[in-house]
Amino acid sequence: MTPHLPMAGRGGGEFDQLRAIFERLGAAAGDLGDDCALVPLGDATLALSIDASLEGVHFRTEWLSFEEIGWRAAGAALSDLAAEGAEPVGVLVSLGLPARKGGSGERGAVEPGAEIMAGVGACVASVGAKVLGGDLVRSERYLVDVAVIGTVTRPVRRRGARPGDGVWVTGVLGGAARALAALRDGRSIDQETRARFARATPRIAAGTWLAARGATAMIDISDGLAADAAHLAAASGVALEIDLERVPCWPEVDPLAAVASGEEYELLVTLPAAFTQAEAQGLAQSGEVRLTRIGACVAGAGVRLSAHGRVVPAPAGWDHFAP
Amino acid sequence: MTPHLPMAGRGGGEFDQLRAIFERLGAAAGDLGDDCALVPLGDATLALSIDASLEGVHFRTEWLSFEEIGWRAAGAALSDLAAEGAEPVGVLVSLGLPARKGGSGERGAVEPGAEIMAGVGACVASVGAKVLGGDLVRSERYLVDVAVIGTVTRPVRRRGARPGDGVWVTGVLGGAARALAALRDGRSIDQETRARFARATPRIAAGTWLAARGATAMIDISDGLAADAAHLAAASGVALEIDLERVPCWPEVDPLAAVASGEEYELLVTLPAAFTQAEAQGLAQSGEVRLTRIGACVAGAGVRLSAHGRVVPAPAGWDHFAP
Repeated sequence: MTPHLPMAGRGGGEFDQLRAIFERLGAAAGDLGDDCALVPLGDATLALSIDASLEGVHFRTEWLSFEEIGWRAAGAALSDLAAEGAEPVGVLVSLGLPARKGGSGERGAVEPGAEIMAGVGACVASVGAKVLGGDLVRSERYLVDVAVIGTVTRPVRRRGARPGDGVWVTGVLGGAARALAALRDGRSIDQETRARFARATPRIAAGTWLAARGATAMIDISDGLAADAAHLAAASGVALEIDLERVPCWPEVDPLAAVASGEEYELLVTLPAAFTQAEAQGLAQSGEVRLTRIGACVAGAGVRLSAHGRVVPAPAGWDHFAP
Repeated sequence: MTPHLPMAGRGGGEFDQLRAIFERLGAAAGDLGDDCALVPLGDATLALSIDASLEGVHFRTEWLSFEEIGWRAAGAALSDLAAEGAEPVGVLVSLGLPARKGGSGERGAVEPGAEIMAGVGACVASVGAKVLGGDLVRSERYLVDVAVIGTVTRPVRRRGARPGDGVWVTGVLGGAARALAALRDGRSIDQETRARFARATPRIAAGTWLAARGATAMIDISDGLAADAAHLAAASGVALEIDLERVPCWPEVDPLAAVASGEEYELLVTLPAAFTQAEAQGLAQSGEVRLTRIGACVAGAGVRLSAHGRVVPAPAGWDHFAP
């Protein structure tokens, strides 16, 4: 599920209730609490997820081009596959388009639906997958709902971390929040930082690489590292100790802001203690993304952030639907 | 794709353009024009489709209970699998819910999201499938977007009909339009007729039965029999001759209204000439649904309706997105 931007109307207890309803509806236990549903099919296992992006909740048309809106929606959905160690087969897209005010000339030559789908298509193609089908509806706000279909040979759930495992993270954190703040305030921002929000790379290749190297638990950092670490810790029944000084931070972002930055679409992963930083170089050397050890799993519950040996209170993070 | 109710804002050429964009996006040729996308996966073939239902476009909350809204959305999506001869594995659901006005007491004890998902779950369970996952978003209008995942051993496309094949239809037509008219006019309607609109049965069992008996082409009647016959004829490169007096009509519905009635979610299917009405009894006797021969495929193009040997002009039907 995609986190809601802070501007979103939040639902509080109603959404907790709905989560409970989803869980009651007969799905296999454990599936709904993870990044993907897993369905055995012959020799394969399907990995499935759906992710709705709605104007005013997940994006604003003043902030992003329509092509970026499409890329972001597809990237958020594909990130759920990455977090499972799955490879995408393709996506189905329901597209909601407002009636064009003032006819086809309203935004010059830009055809929003075409631009959105071009962005979806580019993102999906970047990970070797396809747009398999779609539906169109006339809606008041732009809507891009992306269902992802993938396959996985060694699924990595949120619940497999064990005391002693190392805690690792892909990429460099904090750029997405920095870009979002600039967009919200109407400040200009360099293209590289902007791209962290507007055109994040789904970590499909990193996810499968980590799964093949014995990852014990994995989650994508859509809520921010601190919040998603708490989700992984709860699912696994362990505590996560994270050293803030080891967290790779985007330029001009301090570690506490980096671990609160949502919409990063990087992977937080636990790996056996024997997995070394030297092995981690392999991922960076393949040109994918850097992989950094930021802490360890221990017996207990919750997430402990520390800086230079001192405990630091966890930031609120991006609490889904919290009031 | 679900047809839009007549009350929907229609998009005209914009949607034709988008269909073209979907088709350009690298999907396998032929898939996007059919009821489902087909993806080979090991020994299996996946059948995939997505179907958005939006308040004010596909349903109104004054007309249907929330449970019916959920059933209808799932049924429309599952109908695409039925029309392919596929069996469902499960569905993913994105649910958009407006903020509750006046708090939780607004509609008594009814929790709309829970009721919608109960309807989705009941419909999906009725065909042996599961709700596999979902997403939630705060939206201005109720939204139920359902992605269906199925498998198919012998896919039946729209394009396989040959001159000489018989044209058959499941069920009894015209009830859905009759129910919709009554709901729109605020007239009461008997429960059986209402259910044709509010709680249509996805014809999964009939679809697989027909596929196993050599169906050459198949489509669901979401646009109305006349309009969908034209789609099947165009995809197959044949003409369809349909005898109106053979069309099974809902009580108090005349044949021309029956073939224009959309949202029926019955199956229009072509079968080899050798397939007999006696064989068709097998489907009815299994308790599924009646199957009636209503015409034949001939060389040519388009759909010819006739009554007692005289040609009758085709009704406009439910033209997707037509201006």
